[in-house]
Amino acid sequence: MSANNAVQRKLQEAAVKVEQYIEKLLESRKPETLYEAGRHIIAAGGKRLRPYLVLKSCELVGGDPEQAIPYAAALEILHNFTLIHDDIMDNDFLRRGVPTVHEKWGVPMAILGGDLLFVKVYQSMVEPAMKGAVPIDRALACVNRVTKATVTLCEGQALDITYSGNEDISKEDYISMVEGKTSALFRACAEVGAIIGGGDPDDIELLGSFAWDSGVAFQIVDDILGVVSDEETLGKPVGSDIREGKKTLIMIHALEKATPAEKGGLLKVLGNEDASEHDIALATQTLIETGSIEYAREKADEYVDRAMDTISYFPDSEAKEDLIELIEYFTKRTY
Amino acid sequence: MSANNAVQRKLQEAAVKVEQYIEKLLESRKPETLYEAGRHIIAAGGKRLRPYLVLKSCELVGGDPEQAIPYAAALEILHNFTLIHDDIMDNDFLRRGVPTVHEKWGVPMAILGGDLLFVKVYQSMVEPAMKGAVPIDRALACVNRVTKATVTLCEGQALDITYSGNEDISKEDYISMVEGKTSALFRACAEVGAIIGGGDPDDIELLGSFAWDSGVAFQIVDDILGVVSDEETLGKPVGSDIREGKKTLIMIHALEKATPAEKGGLLKVLGNEDASEHDIALATQTLIETGSIEYAREKADEYVDRAMDTISYFPDSEAKEDLIELIEYFTKRTY
Repeated sequence: MSANNAVQRKLQEAAVKVEQYIEKLLESRKPETLYEAGRHIIAAGGKRLRPYLVLKSCELVGGDPEQAIPYAAALEILHNFTLIHDDIMDNDFLRRGVPTVHEKWGVPMAILGGDLLFVKVYQSMVEPAMKGAVPIDRALACVNRVTKATVTLCEGQALDITYSGNEDISKEDYISMVEGKTSALFRACAEVGAIIGGGDPDDIELLGSFAWDSGVAFQIVDDILGVVSDEETLGKPVGSDIREGKKTLIMIHALEKATPAEKGGLLKVLGNEDASEHDIALATQTLIETGSIEYAREKADEYVDRAMDTISYFPDSEAKEDLIELIEYFTKRTY
Repeated sequence: MSANNAVQRKLQEAAVKVEQYIEKLLESRKPETLYEAGRHIIAAGGKRLRPYLVLKSCELVGGDPEQAIPYAAALEILHNFTLIHDDIMDNDFLRRGVPTVHEKWGVPMAILGGDLLFVKVYQSMVEPAMKGAVPIDRALACVNRVTKATVTLCEGQALDITYSGNEDISKEDYISMVEGKTSALFRACAEVGAIIGGGDPDDIELLGSFAWDSGVAFQIVDDILGVVSDEETLGKPVGSDIREGKKTLIMIHALEKATPAEKGGLLKVLGNEDASEHDIALATQTLIETGSIEYAREKADEYVDRAMDTISYFPDSEAKEDLIELIEYFTKRTY
C-alpha cells in the first residue's frame, strides 16, 4: 500500500465513528425532505479532513479522541453547510459526483437544508456538555471559536462573490479570501480538538496557527488541481473555476505575466459559462506556460513550511506524525 | 394615549438598548456589503416583540433585564435571519416597507447576510459568558434552547414550503407548521429570558408554554391581518399570502365551507402570482362570508385563553402585567 493510500485509509478509519454520530444527529424527522437535503452532500463522501484535524489535535495535546467525536462531527457538518450554500451562490450543479442540493430539491430546500446543518453544528457541540460528557467551559470555548470562524467564513465567501467578475484582484486579496474560506475553518478544527483535549492556551494557539497555514496551502493546491486534474477525480467538470470567473492565485499571476494575446484568451473564458472545451484547454496552456502553476506551487510550499515549523514545537508523538503526514499528503498531491 | 400606543411605546423603549447592542454586534467589517445586507431588515424596523419577551421573562423570574440584553438581541437577530432566508424562498420583494435583501443585493448576498445573522445569534449568547458577565451554565443552557428552537423553525419552514401548492393540508397540519415557524421561537425567547434571570425549571417551562400558545395565536391573527389590513400597515401588498398560495387556517376553513363556485374563485387566485386585485377582493369576500375569519379569530382566542391561564400561576408583578398586556394587544389587534 502506498503512503498516500495509507493517509486516505487513516482518514476513513477515523471518520467511521464521526459519520455514525452525524447520521444519528441528522436522523429524519418531519418533513423528511429537509433531512434528506441536509444529509445529501455529507453522504456523497468527501475527504473527512476536518474531523481528522479535530481528532488528531485532541490526541496531540493528550486528550481522549472519543470525547472529541461530536466536535469532529460539528466541524464536518459546518463544512458541508458552507458547501450547500456556496453551491447555490456559485450556481454549481455537481459536487462529489452527485447533483448539488439545490439542483436536486430546488433553492428553497437547499437554503433550509444548509440552515439545518448549521444548527446541528451547535447541537453537536452543546449536547455533550448538557449530558455532562464534556466540561461546560470547554464546550462553550468551542462554541466561541467555531462562531468566530464562521463569521470569518461568511466574510471570505462574501469576498469571493465580490471578487468574481472584478479584474483588479491582487494576490493579497486572494490570500485574504482563502484565509476566510478555508483557513478559518481549519484553525477552528485544530483549536476545538485542542480545547476538548484539555490543551493549554499555547497548545491551542500553536495548533490553530499550524492549521491556518495548512489551510492556505490546501486551498492553493486545490486550485491547482482544478486546472490540472480530470472530471472524475474532481467530481465536477474541469475548468469549472475558470468558467465561474474565480480569481485564483494562478489566474491572477497568469493575467500579470501573459502577453496581450494570451491575456485576451484568458479573459475570453474567465467567467464565461459557455466557454468551449477547446478555449478552456488553450487557457490552461497559458496558465502553465506563464509559470503560474509553478508560482502557486511555490506559494503553497511556503505555507506548508511555516505550518511544519509551527508543529515542530510539539514533542514527537503519533498524532504529530499523523498531522504532518496529512498536510504533506494534501499539499503535495498531484493526482 | 390609547392602551395600544402604550404597548408600542413600551416595546420601543425596551428595544433601545437591544438595538444598540445589535448595531455594535453588526458593525461593518470587510466586505461592507455583507454587513449592510445583514443589518438591512433589522434597521427597517419591526415590532421588537421577541426581545421584549426575553427581557420581560427575565424580569418576571426576578432577574436583571440588563443581563438579558445580549440574549434579547440574539433572539431578534434570529428572527431576522429567518425573515431574510424566508423572503428568498417565498420570492417576496417587499418587507417592512423596504425591498427585501435578495431584491436589493441578489440571492447570494442574501443567503450570506442571513448566515451572518445566524452566527451572530450565537456570538451574542456566548460572549457575555466568555467575559464573565453571565454564568457559563446559563449561557450554555440558552444556546441549547435556541438551538432546539431553530431545528423546529427549519422544520416549520420546510413544512410551509411543502404545503404551498398542496391541496390536502388539514387544520392540524397548519397548526404544526405555525408551531414550528412561530411558537418555537416565542418559546425560546421566554425560556432564554427565564434562564438568564435565574428562574427555576418550573418557571422556565411555564413561561415557555405561555409563549408557545401566544405564538400560535399571534400567527393566526397575523394571517387575519394579511386578509383584512391594508398595504401601508402590512408593509407588503394585500393578498400576498393568497398569491403565494399560503394555506392559512382561514384558507383551509374557507375551502371546506365554500360552495363549488366560491371554491373555484379561491383556487383561481391561490398561488397565482398574477391574480388581479379584483379577483383577490372576490376571494377575500369568500373568506369573510364562509365565516373563516371568524373561525380563525375563535381559534386564536382559544390559544390566548390557554396562555393567560398558564401565566396566571405566577404571582402578580409589573412584568407579568406587561406580558399579559403584550399578548392581549397583539392577539386582539384589528388595525
